[in-house]
Amino acid sequence: LDRLGTVAVVGVGLIGGSIGLAVRAQGLAHRIVGVGRRAESLAEALRVGAIDEATTDLEKGVAGADVVVVCTPVGEVTTGILRAARAAGDEALITDAGSTKRTIVEAVERDRQGRRAFVGAHPIAGSERTGPAAATADLFRARVCVLTPTQLTPPDRLARARAFWESLGCRLIELDPSDHDAKLAFTSHLPHAVAAALASAVPSAALELAAGAYRDGTRVAASDGALWTAIFRENRAPLLAALDRFDEQLAVFRQAVERGDDEAVRVWWDAARACRAGFRDRPERPAVSD
Amino acid sequence: LDRLGTVAVVGVGLIGGSIGLAVRAQGLAHRIVGVGRRAESLAEALRVGAIDEATTDLEKGVAGADVVVVCTPVGEVTTGILRAARAAGDEALITDAGSTKRTIVEAVERDRQGRRAFVGAHPIAGSERTGPAAATADLFRARVCVLTPTQLTPPDRLARARAFWESLGCRLIELDPSDHDAKLAFTSHLPHAVAAALASAVPSAALELAAGAYRDGTRVAASDGALWTAIFRENRAPLLAALDRFDEQLAVFRQAVERGDDEAVRVWWDAARACRAGFRDRPERPAVSD
Repeated sequence: LDRLGTVAVVGVGLIGGSIGLAVRAQGLAHRIVGVGRRAESLAEALRVGAIDEATTDLEKGVAGADVVVVCTPVGEVTTGILRAARAAGDEALITDAGSTKRTIVEAVERDRQGRRAFVGAHPIAGSERTGPAAATADLFRARVCVLTPTQLTPPDRLARARAFWESLGCRLIELDPSDHDAKLAFTSHLPHAVAAALASAVPSAALELAAGAYRDGTRVAASDGALWTAIFRENRAPLLAALDRFDEQLAVFRQAVERGDDEAVRVWWDAARACRAGFRDRPERPAVSD
Repeated sequence: LDRLGTVAVVGVGLIGGSIGLAVRAQGLAHRIVGVGRRAESLAEALRVGAIDEATTDLEKGVAGADVVVVCTPVGEVTTGILRAARAAGDEALITDAGSTKRTIVEAVERDRQGRRAFVGAHPIAGSERTGPAAATADLFRARVCVLTPTQLTPPDRLARARAFWESLGCRLIELDPSDHDAKLAFTSHLPHAVAAALASAVPSAALELAAGAYRDGTRVAASDGALWTAIFRENRAPLLAALDRFDEQLAVFRQAVERGDDEAVRVWWDAARACRAGFRDRPERPAVSD
């Protein structure tokens, strides 16, 4: 990757702030511009060194940028991309960090200016914490970033998107947008819904007896409500399919417990344990979320 | 607590081994005897210094012990207590570390020799790891230990049980055995069942996209199947009640998602988040389980 002139980050929360810090740490750009809606977030992003300049004016912020990364909550990503596609130069690469991809990619590709500049992306890193104060330069190191190019994606933009996300430390995977959403429904959206249901189910009077299983099983229920409401909405059908499968699994367990069938409980448990054993965590990053 | 002569630990896995290490670290006893069924576990417990002497003969191992702690899987705790009550001296305190309490306490209290010596206990500490090699001297430090005395519990044994468990670093809570089981169904048994159902629900093809929410949400699905099958069996009715409440919570979420009701999803999420905020973890112990 040649050194970039300007990188514009639209949305300077945990993800946008971490992109700014990573771009700076890697020396990838001469200038990092942050675009945000709230003056406090922009001030905080400046303070932690995630951006060099701040503005609440998207059009002004992305003008002249070589790369624009839209890191707003998913419900606002499409609008951000379409506005950036009009305000940035003809050569700009526009990419995003949205947790869902199909609705975003479809909407952008219906727009001639949008599809000319855009490559969908989802760096799978985050935490239940929010805001630029939680940002770190190594948030993306060794994490998977899914790119979701389609037949309409310009090859040169795809090549530049690959180089950009790799330069932040990501390991790239390319998937169809719908395939991305179906998989993330299982690996991220379902676990978030389950964690919140678990948190709601446990009576407060029992919490003094809660330990590690509760703590870890409910950790992501501390995540931001507006953020997750939008993700669930954008990925409704795949999420409902994932919930179906989860409900089926829990029903098998319940029925085995109800009839006192130890053998069936044991078989069910061991199958779950074998599934879990197929997961290989990236050991170098202990506290990431979605 | 006066220094004890002999502490006998029946079952030298993670819990029994950690009790031995804690007793040694605190200098609480002259001698620690480990009773186990498998020679390899006993050898490992000796090797890590959790016990001074090892035997596969329970009666021989507990003879002359001042304190006997039964740390076998829950399905074998009652038998261990009743045998120890006959083989240990008249003055011995017998306690246990079983994850469920009602069935154990009821069975022991039907036995005259059993109820004379016994105080039910559940130190809420553990991990998805098993065996004496995973034992640590500080496993119980600052953790809650629930004691479940009843009207039949001899006051002197209760006083000695309090002193013993406190000396291992535990914070004591006393509960009725059924109340203990109802609460642990929510704080531990339900989270384990949910973690396993989640692990089973996620297709293996999606695992390369899994990150922190999946990792933490399924962590305890790596726990031992025989152990958990027994816990679920011993605590069937409270577990089924906890599953009911969890299912209800998840159904509320599903229905809100199905009808595209963002406001209801948001309200549900924020309520879950508020519940989770009521949990205060013991920060000094990062990796404990049930």
